Amino acid sequence: MTPGSQAFMARAIEMAIDNVRTGSGGPFGALVVKDGAVMASGVNLVTSSNDPTAHAEIVAIRAACRALGSFQLTGCDIYATCEPCPMCLGAIYWARPARVFYAATRADAADAGFDDSLIYEELTASLTARRIPMLPLLRGEAQRIFDAWRSRIDRRPY
Amino acid sequence: MTPGSQAFMARAIEMAIDNVRTGSGGPFGALVVKDGAVMASGVNLVTSSNDPTAHAEIVAIRAACRALGSFQLTGCDIYATCEPCPMCLGAIYWARPARVFYAATRADAADAGFDDSLIYEELTASLTARRIPMLPLLRGEAQRIFDAWRSRIDRRPY
Repeated sequence: MTPGSQAFMARAIEMAIDNVRTGSGGPFGALVVKDGAVMASGVNLVTSSNDPTAHAEIVAIRAACRALGSFQLTGCDIYATCEPCPMCLGAIYWARPARVFYAATRADAADAGFDDSLIYEELTASLTARRIPMLPLLRGEAQRIFDAWRSRIDRRPY
Repeated sequence: MTPGSQAFMARAIEMAIDNVRTGSGGPFGALVVKDGAVMASGVNLVTSSNDPTAHAEIVAIRAACRALGSFQLTGCDIYATCEPCPMCLGAIYWARPARVFYAATRADAADAGFDDSLIYEELTASLTARRIPMLPLLRGEAQRIFDAWRSRIDRRPY
């Protein structure tokens, strides 16, 4: 925790407040920082862009990866104004930053009407017990995809 | 399960195989279907677009929402060639489709080198025990964002 960290989070908070004021989306902001410099920022744009994945962290991660020309955020820190939801947490693990700073908690978000506890529960529920039905279909056929993948010598894992 | 469902999944599987053949990304495909018509499709574009969030399901959800002019996939079915990872599952819960069909399982994906079991574990781990450190910062300041949100009469929840 350095004065720099606090300044980055304060900036993300101001961005989130501005996002609410302009009516662009939900009350969330995020920054991606590398070596003390802001690589990219993001605010929640779900309602204004008709994109349910446009959470602040996802917007910031996508922009930072574009800026860095990489699908990994190696050595980067993410500053999120709220504890990331399961979707964003998944995105963070795929992007592999060094650290995540967060300000508000999931309880604070729930108090404001953004409750992701259902998603946490569903993620650990068995596939047959989910509220959105998850139905298996053509598993055998799908192995052809992985066979094709394994046979590609120049495949690029991530 | 109808013959239609099998045809949609077969189509998603062919798209995923093509994606591997063209080297555009990982071995995954997805379709969004509404009232028997394909609204949008997606393939994994992580490595070719430098976007760690460009999993097939996310690409298809974003495209379907654009096509529908909505941030919700009410009444839609998602056909995914593999059981969705935690990030995509989160996106699915935010998009709220009617059903999800999946072909390969997470075990099949792990066998092919795409193991998301770490992410499942981390999602349920306490914030202080995560492999990517999650550090609290300025929680009090962040309440100003939610205060601004609550004071907006025309706020649009999602």
